[in-house]
Amino acid sequence: MYIIGERINGMFRDVAEAIRNRDKRVIQDLAMRQLSCGADALDVCCGPNVENPIDAMRWLVETIREVSDATLSIDTTKKDVMQAGLELAGKGKCIINSISAEEKKLNEILPLAKEFNAKVIALTLTEKGIPKDASSRVEIAAELIDVCQQYISIDDLFIDAVILPVNVAQEHCPEVLETIRQVKMLSSPPPKTVLGLSNVSQKCLNRSLVNRTYLALAISAGLDAAILDCTDSSLMDTLITAELLMNKFLYCDDYLAAYRKRKLG
Amino acid sequence: MYIIGERINGMFRDVAEAIRNRDKRVIQDLAMRQLSCGADALDVCCGPNVENPIDAMRWLVETIREVSDATLSIDTTKKDVMQAGLELAGKGKCIINSISAEEKKLNEILPLAKEFNAKVIALTLTEKGIPKDASSRVEIAAELIDVCQQYISIDDLFIDAVILPVNVAQEHCPEVLETIRQVKMLSSPPPKTVLGLSNVSQKCLNRSLVNRTYLALAISAGLDAAILDCTDSSLMDTLITAELLMNKFLYCDDYLAAYRKRKLG
Repeated sequence: MYIIGERINGMFRDVAEAIRNRDKRVIQDLAMRQLSCGADALDVCCGPNVENPIDAMRWLVETIREVSDATLSIDTTKKDVMQAGLELAGKGKCIINSISAEEKKLNEILPLAKEFNAKVIALTLTEKGIPKDASSRVEIAAELIDVCQQYISIDDLFIDAVILPVNVAQEHCPEVLETIRQVKMLSSPPPKTVLGLSNVSQKCLNRSLVNRTYLALAISAGLDAAILDCTDSSLMDTLITAELLMNKFLYCDDYLAAYRKRKLG
Repeated sequence: MYIIGERINGMFRDVAEAIRNRDKRVIQDLAMRQLSCGADALDVCCGPNVENPIDAMRWLVETIREVSDATLSIDTTKKDVMQAGLELAGKGKCIINSISAEEKKLNEILPLAKEFNAKVIALTLTEKGIPKDASSRVEIAAELIDVCQQYISIDDLFIDAVILPVNVAQEHCPEVLETIRQVKMLSSPPPKTVLGLSNVSQKCLNRSLVNRTYLALAISAGLDAAILDCTDSSLMDTLITAELLMNKFLYCDDYLAAYRKRKLG
């Protein structure tokens, strides 16, 4: 499982405050803590209420780069913020999070993917919104695979079937699992699949339980990557155990510790 | 999810001792405790080391029947023990656990299923043993569906793809999930699927974690029923949350309590 740490996001109060005060220590601590918990990449998002998002993104990426060379997932809907983040993250060290099947976005952002040798997270949604059923999501995924391959290798494409909160769109939950299953059969080799996991539990009680249970369901469906809170050790225990039971690495009695040790080299 | 409580089994030391001493209280407590944790049926097994298994099975079933009318899963490989258990459990209140695709067993046991209007758990194994890959397990399942329907309704048939311990047969784990997925497509209506869940974690560390994670994976694959330790509240939380996320019952904030309350009437 390719793990993208979600914590450097202005939606979290500590990060919003750190951005406001340009407090490097908070951001660098979050970066190092997530990497020590097994993150392969770090999501970087200014959040919704920042005054100058280009400056904030630049500061965030520069601040992380002082302590780590990890791949950064530049998480923004704005082209100029995306470009600023990619430039400082560096070629081949970045993920575009995200594009969708909206023509304007594809035309604006995909050339950046090529320029910066970036991986791309592509959401199965269009100008009309997020479809409910798996077959419509898969149809959009097929379009995305087609367009994206004009700019990047399919190995760098992550299809995100867009999980919505269970408390507002419960009927989507199994449809997203079915989408993951079907997307893996769309092409050979197939694209990778990813989820913004925590979204499933927005404003729910038992958030950690809902997150880790949905993660297990999605791993059973063939999920390759997730943006998640890797500092949640129960979530990581579930992730590691699910991958064990899918026969992705060899059993040993202390497989939890062995996995973590291997992941951190 | 149809839940069969696993605890009244002579493999557990407290049950073995209770059988030896004919200590009704231990058995009746276990019966009531499992039912209060959400069991739909109770497995009843004398275990391997009992002196007179027919007497032991009779005593167990009579002891449970003093406090509960719940469906009992008579768990034995011996025909005479099975018959003794079914007789006392009562017509329409029993499950045969188990048969397999071994001709002698089918001929001996299936007439009992018809006679006692019993549900049947049918294992995907033959005289040659348990096949590793999903396709061979599915082939056996197809045979079992065919034979069993001569005696019982498909609604009463539970195909058990036989999960083995991850520490000795790790490569079977994803194959069993794939078997569950495919068995649900073998006929219309399909048979139900069941697992003896705790077997996946035999002699492992982290048994509860391994059990609940595999349960979530199996629910994603379409599992209908499980023999499990319903007194493990972490396992039950995962079961309930997985069913929520598969859209099997309606979300509410306190869905864990609501599910338990509804299940217990």
